[in-house]
Amino acid sequence: MISIEDAEKAIAEKGKLIDKELEKFLPKRKGDCLYEAVWYHMATGGKRIRPALAIMACESVGGDGRKAIPFASACEILHNWLLVHDDIEDGDEVRRNQPTVWKKYGIPHAINVGDLMSQKVFQLVLDSRQAKVDDETTMKLLELMADTAVKTAEGQAMDIGMRGKEPSEKEYMDMVTGKTAYYLMAPIMGGAMIGGAGKKDIERIYEFGKHAGPAFQIADDILDLTEGKGRGEIGRDIKEGKRSIIAIHCLSRCTSGEKKAMLEILDKNPCDTSADDVRFVRAMFERYRSIEYSKSKADELMEKARRAIKPLPDELRGLLDMFADYLVNRKK
Amino acid sequence: MISIEDAEKAIAEKGKLIDKELEKFLPKRKGDCLYEAVWYHMATGGKRIRPALAIMACESVGGDGRKAIPFASACEILHNWLLVHDDIEDGDEVRRNQPTVWKKYGIPHAINVGDLMSQKVFQLVLDSRQAKVDDETTMKLLELMADTAVKTAEGQAMDIGMRGKEPSEKEYMDMVTGKTAYYLMAPIMGGAMIGGAGKKDIERIYEFGKHAGPAFQIADDILDLTEGKGRGEIGRDIKEGKRSIIAIHCLSRCTSGEKKAMLEILDKNPCDTSADDVRFVRAMFERYRSIEYSKSKADELMEKARRAIKPLPDELRGLLDMFADYLVNRKK
Repeated sequence: MISIEDAEKAIAEKGKLIDKELEKFLPKRKGDCLYEAVWYHMATGGKRIRPALAIMACESVGGDGRKAIPFASACEILHNWLLVHDDIEDGDEVRRNQPTVWKKYGIPHAINVGDLMSQKVFQLVLDSRQAKVDDETTMKLLELMADTAVKTAEGQAMDIGMRGKEPSEKEYMDMVTGKTAYYLMAPIMGGAMIGGAGKKDIERIYEFGKHAGPAFQIADDILDLTEGKGRGEIGRDIKEGKRSIIAIHCLSRCTSGEKKAMLEILDKNPCDTSADDVRFVRAMFERYRSIEYSKSKADELMEKARRAIKPLPDELRGLLDMFADYLVNRKK
Repeated sequence: MISIEDAEKAIAEKGKLIDKELEKFLPKRKGDCLYEAVWYHMATGGKRIRPALAIMACESVGGDGRKAIPFASACEILHNWLLVHDDIEDGDEVRRNQPTVWKKYGIPHAINVGDLMSQKVFQLVLDSRQAKVDDETTMKLLELMADTAVKTAEGQAMDIGMRGKEPSEKEYMDMVTGKTAYYLMAPIMGGAMIGGAGKKDIERIYEFGKHAGPAFQIADDILDLTEGKGRGEIGRDIKEGKRSIIAIHCLSRCTSGEKKAMLEILDKNPCDTSADDVRFVRAMFERYRSIEYSKSKADELMEKARRAIKPLPDELRGLLDMFADYLVNRKK
């Protein structure tokens, strides 16, 4: 059974190889508001968990982990590209307790920085050939990356579209599945492909993500109310008026007077939301047990996720079980 | 000798095939603020000149133009993705006499729309295999696309960085070469690759672009002062404080008092720039013959571009000569 300690060891061991690969395509320049900004963002404490998962997935099916290094590095860039653009889209000024890229470099540069990163993803995946990945697999990896980003953008459009609206739980689940399933699983799917896993097993990994992705998002939304998400405050999602499953549950249960008051707070300009406003919404969440509901929903989804991977070969399943534990137990 | 009429005929003939290919990857959905927005942008009068060039380049070296359709369509998306994001970066509210995507759908959606398009580029290029392009060439096309977008982002970062500064002509030329050479030539380079052109000839096409790209940009900057660029007004670049070669030339020639007055206008918030301000700057450009200077600079660059392609096979050279004429003579 693979443990979280194994993953941490893998991250420590492979981290340097990943950074070396990244530097091949992202020179550490200073003062150009481009590569400097990429590294400014990348250095703010990324855990490199995605690349580690890619390499471990490759090894778990008997492949040579070194072959997965370019793809693994591409996963790290894909993730960070989307964070750079998300922060603009959400108006987030702080990430990992530092000013976000747009806050530091301005919106025009930040858009351009993300655009650069979106292309470095493909340069890195194409570099797989240097690591002796065959052309057919390289093509599949390229396809996987483009598909992942497309699905994520589709989910993101639904998410942005929900602002100021009252989505149903079903609409929420569709959105969050689109936004997270591929996004979360691409590193493991790609790693397993490089290691030689068959089509059926890759589909099972994706099936895991269809449940684990939403569970992860729900856990994340709960974290925002308890520990914060490294965005400098607790309850930031309330300020942003986010239609999390917690908010959706609460809005569908509370009285029409409470609903009116809640929507008024959620739809305020974040700068105008007071600490009292945030406290009021949190109290409502507690009154209607919306956090408990969301927790049990996440548990149920994780259970489904674990069921989906039962037929996988032992080591690969062990990796996904470990990943499931990580998603459930992580603090930020 | 290929004429501009041949190109127009090619655009009319191939346009439908391109649109069909585009619709394969970009469904015509309504109301989703994503695919709807892509088509809103694409329908505002794009001339589809890039895809036509790709197909003609393929045919000019003896290839089957149908094989170039996926790549040609990808070129159209790459171009339009960058326009969608550029409009946000530049704060442009009007393109082709319609509200820009960010103006109509908001900045968060517009960033996401561009991100989606940036990935559709790769899905389309990968579809080349369905059009019987071999894997090796498909890989090269993928590389070309990523390299093109990377070079463009590098140039764009320099461009954004010049705002509010006083760049030298050399700095300007470095920026504009980075931003335009690949961007302009990728359709022809890729089309020629699909048609079977050799490495040396592909390099010559790029060499053409290293001169023609900046010439094109300069011609574009002159258009802004004469006909406008379909952005609803003449002299928009002055409002935006753009460091065009015209502005750079003028600033390096005028008196220190004039310079102070000009910089004050260029660096104003565009909303605060009056019609008198624009007139003042244009009068300065005329006094120092900066438009004439820029025109002769563009001519000189086009001359170099034409020299670079002398050794190319007749038909391919003919296509590039036609393209050169188009760049010099276009009105908007």
